[in-house]
Amino acid sequence: MKRNLSLLMDFYELTMANGYFKDGRHQDIAVFDVFFRSIPDDGGYAIFAGLESIIDYIENLRFDDEDINYLKSRNIFDEGFLKYLENFKFTSDVYAIEEGTPIFPNEPLFIIKGPIIECQLIETMVLLSINHQSLIATKTSRIVREAKGRPVFEFGARRAHSFDAANLGARSAYIGGVTGTSNTLAGRLFNIPALGTMAHSYVQSFESEFEAFKSYALNYPDNTLLLVDTYDTLHQGIPNAIRVHNEILKPMGKSLKGIRIDSGDLAYLSKKVRTLLDEAGLTDTKITVSNALDEFIIRDLVVHQDAMIDSFGVGERLITARSEAVFGGVFKLSALEEDGKLIPKIKISDNVAKTTIPGFKQLYRFYDENNMAIADLITLHDEVIDSTKPYTLFDPMHPWKQKVVENFRVEKKLVPIFEKGKLVYNIPKLSEIRKRKEQLFESLWKEVIRLKNPHEYYVDLSQDLWDIRQELITKHKN
Amino acid sequence: MKRNLSLLMDFYELTMANGYFKDGRHQDIAVFDVFFRSIPDDGGYAIFAGLESIIDYIENLRFDDEDINYLKSRNIFDEGFLKYLENFKFTSDVYAIEEGTPIFPNEPLFIIKGPIIECQLIETMVLLSINHQSLIATKTSRIVREAKGRPVFEFGARRAHSFDAANLGARSAYIGGVTGTSNTLAGRLFNIPALGTMAHSYVQSFESEFEAFKSYALNYPDNTLLLVDTYDTLHQGIPNAIRVHNEILKPMGKSLKGIRIDSGDLAYLSKKVRTLLDEAGLTDTKITVSNALDEFIIRDLVVHQDAMIDSFGVGERLITARSEAVFGGVFKLSALEEDGKLIPKIKISDNVAKTTIPGFKQLYRFYDENNMAIADLITLHDEVIDSTKPYTLFDPMHPWKQKVVENFRVEKKLVPIFEKGKLVYNIPKLSEIRKRKEQLFESLWKEVIRLKNPHEYYVDLSQDLWDIRQELITKHKN
Repeated sequence: MKRNLSLLMDFYELTMANGYFKDGRHQDIAVFDVFFRSIPDDGGYAIFAGLESIIDYIENLRFDDEDINYLKSRNIFDEGFLKYLENFKFTSDVYAIEEGTPIFPNEPLFIIKGPIIECQLIETMVLLSINHQSLIATKTSRIVREAKGRPVFEFGARRAHSFDAANLGARSAYIGGVTGTSNTLAGRLFNIPALGTMAHSYVQSFESEFEAFKSYALNYPDNTLLLVDTYDTLHQGIPNAIRVHNEILKPMGKSLKGIRIDSGDLAYLSKKVRTLLDEAGLTDTKITVSNALDEFIIRDLVVHQDAMIDSFGVGERLITARSEAVFGGVFKLSALEEDGKLIPKIKISDNVAKTTIPGFKQLYRFYDENNMAIADLITLHDEVIDSTKPYTLFDPMHPWKQKVVENFRVEKKLVPIFEKGKLVYNIPKLSEIRKRKEQLFESLWKEVIRLKNPHEYYVDLSQDLWDIRQELITKHKN
Repeated sequence: MKRNLSLLMDFYELTMANGYFKDGRHQDIAVFDVFFRSIPDDGGYAIFAGLESIIDYIENLRFDDEDINYLKSRNIFDEGFLKYLENFKFTSDVYAIEEGTPIFPNEPLFIIKGPIIECQLIETMVLLSINHQSLIATKTSRIVREAKGRPVFEFGARRAHSFDAANLGARSAYIGGVTGTSNTLAGRLFNIPALGTMAHSYVQSFESEFEAFKSYALNYPDNTLLLVDTYDTLHQGIPNAIRVHNEILKPMGKSLKGIRIDSGDLAYLSKKVRTLLDEAGLTDTKITVSNALDEFIIRDLVVHQDAMIDSFGVGERLITARSEAVFGGVFKLSALEEDGKLIPKIKISDNVAKTTIPGFKQLYRFYDENNMAIADLITLHDEVIDSTKPYTLFDPMHPWKQKVVENFRVEKKLVPIFEKGKLVYNIPKLSEIRKRKEQLFESLWKEVIRLKNPHEYYVDLSQDLWDIRQELITKHKN
């Protein structure tokens, strides 16, 4: 029961596609790259996500009668073009970075090489998928990191930007490092631990808080987690929770699993609550907190406030990436075949940093002997890096800044996804993607991942690629 | 081909529902309200949207085998509860504000009265729909207003938070006032004008900019709108556009419809471009601009910079509501039936403003003789306002601040949507919703809709409702 999302594309993709078609140029081979220019929240890295959605879109890209009739009704599209869409078959090559990989500005994340008409038709969905999902995975990884090993749960469905944002947002958050989600459908669809216990309304719906807690304990004796702040956390909520433990759970051989605080001063309350619970012998009862948390508040609680918190529920600021709700991936032409030869294309900007990197490319990541990432290198697609010899990296903006690396290892980061339209990539399980993120994250220097003023990770160009770019810039200036 | 979104609910809705079920209380009648506490961007109003999605969800709320099997696999739900879900039938009453209506903090936007188990099961989707769609409709109305009558187009699909956010975001933006969208699927689904012309890649894919423009003009002679900033707007883009007009379009009896500028200083460029076009006799050629626009930049361009712009394309800052990506609607218990009588429920907070408004309610809007909105009044559900007599409004926080209104007219703002589970609301066409927004917006004072430091629109309580609330607060304090 697949949704038909084929027409989720900017209308100009279709006017351009129709133009190429009518000009007889639609089968000309082009190369387009996706890259981004700046990291949300002034961070030092981002986490790549969204590839599985893109694969899904491409695999299901058909134009049904409704689509064709709609386009026909616009009275601007060529009959032959509509026929082409009716019989659409994806035939391009696609390379991409794998989900869960740390990524950096200006490097190619996704490359399509194929008929220019196909490149154009998938543009919007490719960007949409990468931009949203990388945004959430990145934001989540910042939040999870500051929790310093304490589990973080994604609680944001009610503030997500609609249904897919809740579901795919939960998936991206899981890649980014959350332990579970409150979204049941995401749990079912992606096999993410889905969990939750009670809202204030449950407590309010009973005669008393104690009665509510008692009901919950009797219904869920193995996993009694009580929301204690409906009336007064310290004077009612915790005493009632302890009473439920003593009167209901203990006689059954069970114990109070945890309590949740959703309002008030979380640092102060968590410490007071910990003391009350410990004094009642409930040293194993966990304290969970929620309420407009983000990476900075969590860091404050954990590092500066000595809060006694075992896990965090994070909602709106994660699922909307509220502090920076835009991930700015772009999709740019980088080469065009002329007479059977790929000719690199550049888009010059007065803003030097916005001038594109031309050509059909590949991306390598350099690691040192301790498996720490040193730099990324953008090369021509077929360049081979010989890691047995010293390699000279240089800053593409200031080429006199050089660094010779030895005893390194390289990883090719762009892997084949489609070959001539055929899916050749083994789609990994979500749990594997999550593990990849965890492992690769370990290879980043602390200086790169810190929240404020991170070190700028090196993304360099190979000499060959740099030369081509300079040549095109020079040619263009004349 | 409906998607099954039934389980898009926070897991705690299910643990609570199962708890109510096992306690034999699930058919107890409850009342829950949706309201919000603060307006995004410190604005003076918001625009309500999301109702149609909620209706759609409720109408399709079934739990299929996959859902039930998933829940079964969790090993915490009662067999009888799962049977209940398998045979789920919605039986509640629902009241809501109509889409496109200006709304204000603390007033009930959506009320459900029915078995507490049903209220709980729809909570997440109700909030998700209202929060996302009202956020985008509100943001859009701010942007459109500052364009002072110039058309604004929604161009944000590639930066939306996934597929639904692109589609329903475009729908919300249309309610909020955009003239069209770049999202073709939204165009097809909702009958919103979908439009677009070309990206930089189209221009780059040709030998020269002139060749690209020529191709476009030949393919779309009736609607030639050229993107002029790929290389150099003033020295190449505009001269090439004028040449295409003179050499291609004019001989066909056509003319250049417009040009788009997507980078650089839009104020400066638009003025220079206007002069160049006018000098070439192209006085009817329209100038469209895009590039990270929002309400403030548009106001600057229009009011302070005398920019010569005919229409705006707005992308990421609209579709993500980037400046404030969260709309904070909440869902709170307000009454519970005991022995056949609805008993108002309150949630007290130390923060007075966060204490809820109890009871089963109705919302009235007061208009003066000139059809300007004076105030909203929250009443008990069955209260009737006699508009033939003077009515005393008072500030619920400072009841000594009073105002007697005469010669007014009232509108009941919460209309029946479902009655005993049956849809009784005539779902309006999107064009009607958009018209409603336009008309009702005219009833707001300029002081309420200005961007900065708007006047706080009055949302008052009737004397009866105020008394009940005070009584509950007093009772609770003792």
